[in-house]
Amino acid sequence: MDILCRCVSSALFLSFGMRRDVNVHLLLLGEPDPGKIIRFEGLHLRYLNPDERSSGSLIQKALKKDATEQDIRSTPGVWIRRGDLGFLLSKFEGRTLFYLREDGEDIRAIANEIRDPVFFLGDHIGVTEEEEKQLLKAGAKIISVGPLSLHSNHCITLVHNELDRAEAQRGELPGEIERRIEN
Amino acid sequence: MDILCRCVSSALFLSFGMRRDVNVHLLLLGEPDPGKIIRFEGLHLRYLNPDERSSGSLIQKALKKDATEQDIRSTPGVWIRRGDLGFLLSKFEGRTLFYLREDGEDIRAIANEIRDPVFFLGDHIGVTEEEEKQLLKAGAKIISVGPLSLHSNHCITLVHNELDRAEAQRGELPGEIERRIEN
Repeated sequence: MDILCRCVSSALFLSFGMRRDVNVHLLLLGEPDPGKIIRFEGLHLRYLNPDERSSGSLIQKALKKDATEQDIRSTPGVWIRRGDLGFLLSKFEGRTLFYLREDGEDIRAIANEIRDPVFFLGDHIGVTEEEEKQLLKAGAKIISVGPLSLHSNHCITLVHNELDRAEAQRGELPGEIERRIEN
Repeated sequence: MDILCRCVSSALFLSFGMRRDVNVHLLLLGEPDPGKIIRFEGLHLRYLNPDERSSGSLIQKALKKDATEQDIRSTPGVWIRRGDLGFLLSKFEGRTLFYLREDGEDIRAIANEIRDPVFFLGDHIGVTEEEEKQLLKAGAKIISVGPLSLHSNHCITLVHNELDRAEAQRGELPGEIERRIEN
């Protein structure tokens, strides 16, 4: 759970303010009640600070809701529902999917061409073979952010930096392009 | 204090293991007892996990020691002493100093030439004018990591990535070059 909290923070925080054009989807597949998706919407988020306790508390609040096949709002900008990877992939149909794996193509080589992306990151246990198959079948491109194996929250920081730099080069900062980090 | 905990974690953690070639210096100048330096030595560190609570607990333990002008070991790899920015700068004499500021030169343009570096980062309040003068007088070069203003822990992740990539290009990974992130 700690790693999820840090991912939420890395995906959403700037030094002064929040990345309002970013959404985070936490796909929770662990016991005791697998198959839940918590969504953080940068645009509507409130009550989130950069520390782990803060995102942890919003996640816990969401998990107390009775999750169904419909989105239920937990706190402003935080939603929970039942769902799995297949559901997420169908939701993101038509967008550019990336799957972060250490042996992927260097994001730096393609950052300038990335538009309307969704990034998939595994937790510390990684992504199962079956999930990987699903991702690749849906057209996800395998990319990496550097030569070493890093925690997911650090990878998110690096992905943002590549896209920030690409947007700045195109004169598109701050955040005119919708961008979403999904986990 | 939260931000310091996150900086320690960003500076020292890889996905599987620790950056043993990194030291972190936390320069604590706030009330009630300003002028302390806590040093985390990657090479000797134990009992540190990537979560904020873990680094927070090691910092709290160190702060309970009676800090003097000599290093006192708090836990394995964690040391505390009295000191200020001037002390740190004299300690790092002869090394290559960098000071992170948003309007600095892009680290990406010079990453390949960086050897034996020490990086100085401010907290969320930033660095005072007086401290900045000291840093520049000591020869620190002003660099930046991207077009947006980010939290210090995210900056550390980005600095590591640039150096990791430069080392990989030179065929020097894993970590044959001593590298230190100081805060």
